[in-house]
Amino acid sequence: MIEDNLLGFYESGKGDQFTQGVDPATGKLLFGKFKNAISSEVDEALKRSAEAFEIYRKKSANEKAKFLYTIADQIEEIGETLIERCCAESGLASARITGERGRTTSQLRMFADLIEDGSWVEATIERADADRSPIPKPDIRRILTPMGPVVIFAASNFPLAFSTAGGDTASALAGGNTVIVKAHSAHPGTSALVGEAINKAAIKCNMPDGVFSLLHGSGKDVGQRLIKDKRVKAAGFTGSEKAGRILYDLANQREEPIPFFAEMGSVNPVLVLPSALNSDTAEMLSSSITLGSGQFCTNPGLILSIAGNALEDFIGELSQRLSRIDPQVMLTEKICKSYNDMKSLSSANQHLKNETESIDTAQKNYATPVLLSIEGKDFLNNLNLSNEVFGPYSIIVKCKDKDQLNEILANLKGQLTGTVFGASQDFEDFTQLIDQLEKRVGRLIFNGVPTGVEVCASMQHGGPYPASSDSRFTSVGTMAIKRFVRPIAFQSWPDEQLPHELQDSNPLNIWRLIDGKWTKD
Amino acid sequence: MIEDNLLGFYESGKGDQFTQGVDPATGKLLFGKFKNAISSEVDEALKRSAEAFEIYRKKSANEKAKFLYTIADQIEEIGETLIERCCAESGLASARITGERGRTTSQLRMFADLIEDGSWVEATIERADADRSPIPKPDIRRILTPMGPVVIFAASNFPLAFSTAGGDTASALAGGNTVIVKAHSAHPGTSALVGEAINKAAIKCNMPDGVFSLLHGSGKDVGQRLIKDKRVKAAGFTGSEKAGRILYDLANQREEPIPFFAEMGSVNPVLVLPSALNSDTAEMLSSSITLGSGQFCTNPGLILSIAGNALEDFIGELSQRLSRIDPQVMLTEKICKSYNDMKSLSSANQHLKNETESIDTAQKNYATPVLLSIEGKDFLNNLNLSNEVFGPYSIIVKCKDKDQLNEILANLKGQLTGTVFGASQDFEDFTQLIDQLEKRVGRLIFNGVPTGVEVCASMQHGGPYPASSDSRFTSVGTMAIKRFVRPIAFQSWPDEQLPHELQDSNPLNIWRLIDGKWTKD
Repeated sequence: MIEDNLLGFYESGKGDQFTQGVDPATGKLLFGKFKNAISSEVDEALKRSAEAFEIYRKKSANEKAKFLYTIADQIEEIGETLIERCCAESGLASARITGERGRTTSQLRMFADLIEDGSWVEATIERADADRSPIPKPDIRRILTPMGPVVIFAASNFPLAFSTAGGDTASALAGGNTVIVKAHSAHPGTSALVGEAINKAAIKCNMPDGVFSLLHGSGKDVGQRLIKDKRVKAAGFTGSEKAGRILYDLANQREEPIPFFAEMGSVNPVLVLPSALNSDTAEMLSSSITLGSGQFCTNPGLILSIAGNALEDFIGELSQRLSRIDPQVMLTEKICKSYNDMKSLSSANQHLKNETESIDTAQKNYATPVLLSIEGKDFLNNLNLSNEVFGPYSIIVKCKDKDQLNEILANLKGQLTGTVFGASQDFEDFTQLIDQLEKRVGRLIFNGVPTGVEVCASMQHGGPYPASSDSRFTSVGTMAIKRFVRPIAFQSWPDEQLPHELQDSNPLNIWRLIDGKWTKD
Repeated sequence: MIEDNLLGFYESGKGDQFTQGVDPATGKLLFGKFKNAISSEVDEALKRSAEAFEIYRKKSANEKAKFLYTIADQIEEIGETLIERCCAESGLASARITGERGRTTSQLRMFADLIEDGSWVEATIERADADRSPIPKPDIRRILTPMGPVVIFAASNFPLAFSTAGGDTASALAGGNTVIVKAHSAHPGTSALVGEAINKAAIKCNMPDGVFSLLHGSGKDVGQRLIKDKRVKAAGFTGSEKAGRILYDLANQREEPIPFFAEMGSVNPVLVLPSALNSDTAEMLSSSITLGSGQFCTNPGLILSIAGNALEDFIGELSQRLSRIDPQVMLTEKICKSYNDMKSLSSANQHLKNETESIDTAQKNYATPVLLSIEGKDFLNNLNLSNEVFGPYSIIVKCKDKDQLNEILANLKGQLTGTVFGASQDFEDFTQLIDQLEKRVGRLIFNGVPTGVEVCASMQHGGPYPASSDSRFTSVGTMAIKRFVRPIAFQSWPDEQLPHELQDSNPLNIWRLIDGKWTKD
C-alpha cells in the first residue's frame, strides 16, 4: 500500500503529518501512515494535472473509454485486500462493501460505454445557407468539451462508490478532464489502494502522468488550497452542508469562479397518506431508516402524516420494528459522537417524544436507531428539526390536517428526494401536497424508499439548495458528466479540423441534431 | 405608453423618482417619466410572480408556445412607434432596430417552436426490471422542469433582442418560469412598450397575473433587491463585468444561492495568420470593429499577428479603412464618456501607437473608431490591455514570433469568441495557437468575424469566465433554455400522474432516451 501522495505517477511524502485509518468497530489504528500533502506537493499535483490535461483532452473517446474499463479491472484485481481494508476503515459489512465495489466498477464501465457510444456530446449542426436573406447563414457546429483539472472531494459514506474512483471521478475523467482527489481521512488505506489501481490503469493505457492525483490531508488545508488554485476548473463534493458551503463559497469567491457541485444531503421527506398507514410501509421505512446505519444522503429523516388512531398504530409498529434492529457501527467516532449529540439534543426538546426504546448501552461507535414524534404545530415552531441528522434517525410529524401538512412542506428547504406512500386515487385528494413536494426535490418516489439510488441515465441525484449547490446537475447516473463539460461552437471551421463528432461524414456514427432533426446520418 | 411599473397586470407608480429616456444623438430628453419601483412595488411584483408560477408551470407546452407566439405578434403590432422610440433612445439606426425587432420576434417564435416540438425536455426513461439481481430495478423517468420566478437584467446594447422580451426572457418563459425584468435605464420607453405587449399577450392567452413584470429603477436598488429575494430562483444578465460580478456575488452569497448567468463580454481575440494579411481580412475587420459603433459583446477588440512588413501594410490598410468610417453615436452619454476616457488613457500609454487619424471633433456622444498597435513584449507587460473597451476600438499586437503569440494567448482570460484568419494548411503550423484559443473561448470562427451572432440550436454564446459566469451555458440559441430548468426524476410513479412527456404512450410524440436508445416510440 502506497503511503505517499500520488502526484500523477510520482509518489511523494514530504510532510511530517499523516492520516491513519481507524477501525470504528474496535477503535484500533490500522496499519499505514498516509502522509498529508504539503503545499509544494499540492502544487506539484496541480502542475502535473494541468500539463496532463493538454494531452488527455485530445485522447480519442475509445482511448478514454479503455482507460475507464481498465480502472474497473484494476480495482477488481486488488481482490479481497480492498474489501478487507475498506470494511475495517468504514465499519461497513463485507456484503455491503462487495456490493459497493460492484457499483463502483459498474459506474466506471457505464461512463466508458457512454463515451464509447459517443452520442452524449450533444453534437448539434446548423449548416450554412448562402442564400438566406438578409444575410447568409454560416455553418455552426457545437459539441461538449472538457474544462480542465477537476478536484474531487471524496465522501465518507461511500468509501468506494463516492470516493477515489467513484462517480465523480469517473464522470470527470469520462468528460476528458484530469482529476485530483482529496482523499477522505476516514478511509486513507482504501483511497491509497484505489489510487494505485487508477495509476496502474493510466500507465497500461498510455495516459499522461498527472491524469490522476491523490492527496491526503485535511479539507481545511489541502482541500481549500486546491479549490483556490487557478489551474483548477471545476470541483465535485459529497458531504455535509457545512463543509460543502465553505468550499462552495471559496469556489465562487475566486477571481475566476468555477463550477462547484456539492451534494449535501437532506432529510428526504416521506409523505405517508392515510391509505398507506400499514405494515408494508412500516417494514419498508424501518429498513430504509437503518440501512447502512442510516448513513445515506437519501435516508428518510422526516415522515409526515395526518394525526389519528391509524397513525398512532403505525408509529407503534414502526418503532417496534426499529427497536428490533441491532445497533450498527458508524463510519467514524466523530460521526457517531455527532449522532449521539443530536439524539441528546432531541431528548431535551420537550415537543419531541421518543418512540423507540433507545437502550444506550450500545458499544462505542455503535448507533441505536431512533424514531421521534412531534405534533405538526410544534414542528412548525421548530423548523430546525428539518435539518439532517446523519444516522438511523427519523422524526414523524403528526399533522392535524392536510393544511398543516401543506404548511410544513411549504417550509422545507430543497431535498434530494420526496416520497409518497399512498394509492393512485390519493393523487386527486392530495394534489397540492404532492405539488409542494415536487417543487422542492430532485427525485419523487411512489410507494418505495429513497435509499438505493439507481445508477442510470434517468437518475437525478441532486435537488434544490441545500440538497445540492446547483439543482441543474446530478452526481449519480450518466448525466453526472454534464457537470464537467462545456459547449464550444465552431463557425465555418474546416471539416477536417473539426472534432470527429462534428465532421460531415459522422465517422463515429453518433446521434446528432442537424438543422433541427435528430439523425445518425 | 405606460409610465408605471408593471407588477403583473397591475400598473403602479408610487415612487417619486423616475427614469427618462434621452436621445444620445441630441442629448434631448424624450417624453415619459418612468417611475422607479419602490420596495413595496418590488415586493408586490415578486409576490405575483411566485403566485403566477404555481399556475404557469402547469400550463401545457402548447399554451406556453401560444403565449410566446402572441408576444411576438403583439410586438409587431406596436409598429413604427416601437422602432421610432427605440431608435431615439439608443441612437441606433432604423434599419438596425428593424432588424433587431425581427431577431427578437424570431427568438420568441424559435422558443415557441422548441417547446411545441417538445423533445427539448431530455425525457429519459429506464424501465423497471423485476428480475434484476441482486435487487429489482425500479422504473425511473427524468424530465426538465422549471425553477420558479426568474429575474432578467436587460442589456443596453440590444434594446430589443436582449432586453424586455429578449432571448433571456423568451428562454425563461419557454422553460415554464415566470419573469421579472429589471428595465435598462437607457431605454425605459422601449421597455414600457414591449412590456405592455407582453402583458397584452398574457391576457389574450389566459396567462396568470404575474407571469411577467417590468420594473424601472437602478441596478443598485431595484436589481439588488430582486436578486436577494428568496422567491427568486434564477437570474440572467447581459452587461459589464463589473456590474455582472456584483450581482453574481449577491446571488451566490444568498442563504439559498441561485443560478445566475451573466454574459459579461470580452475582447474576442482575432488571430490573423500571415497567409491572411490581406485586403479581404482588413475589410471584414474594419466593418466588424465599427458595427453598431463597436457596441457588441463580440466586437473584435484584440488582433494578434506576427510582426513584419506584411503586418505593417495590413495595419496601414486597416487603419485607413477605419479612418474612412464616419463617427457614430453611442448608446448613452455615459458609455461614450467611458469610451473617450479609455481612448485618452490609451494615448497616454507610451507603448501604444495610435494607427488611426482620430479627429476628435466628433459631435457629443459620437465615437471615432480607433486602432492602436503595440509590440508583443509590451503587451505582455501591460496585460490590462486585454480588458474590454466598449466601442469601435481595437488593439493590434505585433508579436515577434509564434512563441510570443502563444504566450499572449496563454495569458488571456476567458472569451466569448476566438477568430482565426488563415488558410486550411495553416492548421498544421499553428496547431498550438489554435489550441490555446480553443481552451479559452465559447465559439471559434474561421475566416469570418465574431459579430453577428447566429440565433440557432448550435450557437454557443458564453465562454470561460469572465466572458460568462458559467461556461456550461449559453445566452443565445435554443439551448439558452437550459439555464432556467432543472431535472426531476419520478420513480415508480403512476403512469397517468406523470408529465405527458414521460407517459408510456408518448402522447406528445417526442424523442426520448428509453433504456439507452433514442426513440419516438
